[in-house]
Amino acid sequence: MTPRLTASTPREADVVVIGAGLSGLVTARLLHRAGLRVLVLEAKNRVGGRLLTTTTTAGVALDAGGAWVGPGQDAVLALLDELGIALIPQYTAGHNLLRIGGRTHRYRGDLPRLGPAALLDLARARRAVDRMARRLGPPPLTGPYAARLDTWTVAAWLDRHVHTRAARLILQVATAASFACRPEELSLLAFAAHVGGNGGLSRLIGVRDGALAHRIAGGAATLTARLANELTGRILLGHPVTRITRTADHATVTVPGRTPITARRVVIAMDPATARTIAHDPPLPPPRADLQTRWQTGSGVKAHLVYPRPWWRDLGLTGAAVTDTGTVRLTFDVSPPGDGSGILLVLLGLPLIDDPALLHPDARDRRRRKIVDDLTALFGPKARDPIEYREQDWSAEPWQTGCLPRVPPGLLGTHHAWLTRPIGPLHWAGSETSYLGEGHMDGAVRSAHRAATEVLDSLDCKAHGAL
Amino acid sequence: MTPRLTASTPREADVVVIGAGLSGLVTARLLHRAGLRVLVLEAKNRVGGRLLTTTTTAGVALDAGGAWVGPGQDAVLALLDELGIALIPQYTAGHNLLRIGGRTHRYRGDLPRLGPAALLDLARARRAVDRMARRLGPPPLTGPYAARLDTWTVAAWLDRHVHTRAARLILQVATAASFACRPEELSLLAFAAHVGGNGGLSRLIGVRDGALAHRIAGGAATLTARLANELTGRILLGHPVTRITRTADHATVTVPGRTPITARRVVIAMDPATARTIAHDPPLPPPRADLQTRWQTGSGVKAHLVYPRPWWRDLGLTGAAVTDTGTVRLTFDVSPPGDGSGILLVLLGLPLIDDPALLHPDARDRRRRKIVDDLTALFGPKARDPIEYREQDWSAEPWQTGCLPRVPPGLLGTHHAWLTRPIGPLHWAGSETSYLGEGHMDGAVRSAHRAATEVLDSLDCKAHGAL
Repeated sequence: MTPRLTASTPREADVVVIGAGLSGLVTARLLHRAGLRVLVLEAKNRVGGRLLTTTTTAGVALDAGGAWVGPGQDAVLALLDELGIALIPQYTAGHNLLRIGGRTHRYRGDLPRLGPAALLDLARARRAVDRMARRLGPPPLTGPYAARLDTWTVAAWLDRHVHTRAARLILQVATAASFACRPEELSLLAFAAHVGGNGGLSRLIGVRDGALAHRIAGGAATLTARLANELTGRILLGHPVTRITRTADHATVTVPGRTPITARRVVIAMDPATARTIAHDPPLPPPRADLQTRWQTGSGVKAHLVYPRPWWRDLGLTGAAVTDTGTVRLTFDVSPPGDGSGILLVLLGLPLIDDPALLHPDARDRRRRKIVDDLTALFGPKARDPIEYREQDWSAEPWQTGCLPRVPPGLLGTHHAWLTRPIGPLHWAGSETSYLGEGHMDGAVRSAHRAATEVLDSLDCKAHGAL
Repeated sequence: MTPRLTASTPREADVVVIGAGLSGLVTARLLHRAGLRVLVLEAKNRVGGRLLTTTTTAGVALDAGGAWVGPGQDAVLALLDELGIALIPQYTAGHNLLRIGGRTHRYRGDLPRLGPAALLDLARARRAVDRMARRLGPPPLTGPYAARLDTWTVAAWLDRHVHTRAARLILQVATAASFACRPEELSLLAFAAHVGGNGGLSRLIGVRDGALAHRIAGGAATLTARLANELTGRILLGHPVTRITRTADHATVTVPGRTPITARRVVIAMDPATARTIAHDPPLPPPRADLQTRWQTGSGVKAHLVYPRPWWRDLGLTGAAVTDTGTVRLTFDVSPPGDGSGILLVLLGLPLIDDPALLHPDARDRRRRKIVDDLTALFGPKARDPIEYREQDWSAEPWQTGCLPRVPPGLLGTHHAWLTRPIGPLHWAGSETSYLGEGHMDGAVRSAHRAATEVLDSLDCKAHGAL
């Protein structure tokens, strides 16, 4: 699955794509198919970016990064279909758990069965969020309404519009799962745009008909590995770009210890925070530089607990749980289809953890013990003895600032256009640059189509019809 | 004025201080006087940090960085007094200008003479801000009130509590001048704490009895140069620390190409954003790492226009102006005392500029022309011909992430204690770590006293009385 390196770094290309994550690989594939000489430079020693599949000792795929796709995500679903990659439906035949205020509630479907006050509150909040997203509409995120939303944090909005503890918890968890941050950090504009671009709040947090509907057979990295195979010889791993020198119609990229590479266009397929690691000559325009400086990415630990079988299903449980205290705050069943292992995924991060010290890179053993304790309290004594514990700490991932965006107020409202605005020969891809499917694989694929189209248009390419 | 380097880097010290800005130098001086072997490591080739004094071709001092001190800033005033450094009162014998909605108002004192509605609005806003600051009180910034303030941006608060354009402009400019950001970026908690720690809003934005009352004779860097002279042989310039390895009771700091230095204590005297450039082994606790990642510093351009004399004074003007559009949005008279040159200072930055492209490092000539045009429109035709134009672009300053803090919501409320909390042998200094005088030289000096006291306490030093 590792793409072959070219023997030596070439000195030029039509287009250099920086980053071999999903958006970079799709961009490169489109441009390659359009007949351009494309070169993908990737700092890490693997492709996939935030898609990373490992395996249990028994060979079962574990998604240590992005994992789910769902209805409405047409761009990524079409790509998976084209490549003949199968989907695994998320397991839903049972009860989810919600533990709040010391009580555990069992419920089916996407929303917990709480008291009528909480249910009404949650329904009202959902409608209010969706109304906000609709009124905002797609980019450009300009105008007085967008500007006003951008002066608010999600927390201040929740304070004012959501009154029950349960409804707040659900929305707080939704914020953490989409943005890796607490509601008080997040711009209401960023939240509303994210909800709008992902088909509304129900779809965003939903399993059956939502963004968590399916996982990718063999793991999400199957997708990027397949794309990389089509680009054999055009991907250079271990090639971190540290500097780009540009003129109006070409750019030269520097990789330490290598011959500089000159290209007519460069597509930077990195999230805005990770893009900070590249120096520019001349410097980037101040608003783009400011966007990169202030854009934050949150990261956390994705922990997988492997059991001989999914025993919680026998108890009538789906393995999905949300809680309001402790270390384990959000879990999912990510077992392989069929009769194999049972695997519970636990998402840990600063926005949802009682004791932040447990996130310390050195705290692995203590973290594991606390997770097992919490899972046992939630699901019962069978959680006590996983046969395997695997974790991915995204804060320690090299060449990656984090995994999910956490966008503060006062940024998108003024800087949104700079997410995609070409700067001379530089173009931008990445899930964060797409309104539709933002934060998901779908956004990455859509951004690649936009970036590739921009490049072909700007080069006045005949082969354009291929897109 | 350049401190002499030691012949070779020593291998050990009692205390290593990282950063030869005001807080680092005062910390080192206190520890040195207490009898400890102190070593100050500074990445730049100069001392002073955000205090930087240059001179006109005629030899007049220009403060390209921090410049003012005022009443209530007792720590820095005592230090200046001890060192026998004189103060220059800010020139106030005339009218200030406020241009808003195309009209220019002349006024004396700190608040413009506007219509009664605007004046009432501004007075009410000032009282509300001061009340908020008093209710919040000094750190720890915990509790439900602080948490609630931290979910708000200053912009959302202004929307709700300030109704006239003039009052909003004044508060927007105050935000930009203290935080180098727009109100929609700034946590209301950070703003309230800043106002509280600086004696209230009137004092914070005031000239006669406020934070802009005096400049330092010879420029602010006179202060840091004098401190550095007392530490001759103990300051190593051009020594960027890239890594700190720590145990419970000592730390080893790495400067590329030099012998590692081991010390019993390390004081990191850098703002939290600039402190990001140091890697830690073991990694910092997650909340401290998160604080450093999310802390933002804004920067801008400080432009000085030098004229043969302060001709605006002849027109009855102080040279101070605030405007609501254009490139020039905030000016001050920073002429030397006596009959010498007339110097106007113009502060430019992203939060207060119509055309951000003018902040591009390459746009110096265009920037200068626009500034001269705007000054001419404000002050009259004599502004047209400065004999000298000097500027300092802090965004281009090496080893400095920016000059002023811009603190997003959802950070201080949870992370404030981590600004000062020692981590094993590591201690923290810098103006941002002090509630009193935060953002000013006074906060830097106070933070140094706290950090030095912590170090001496932890080393159980007899000489402690010297502080």
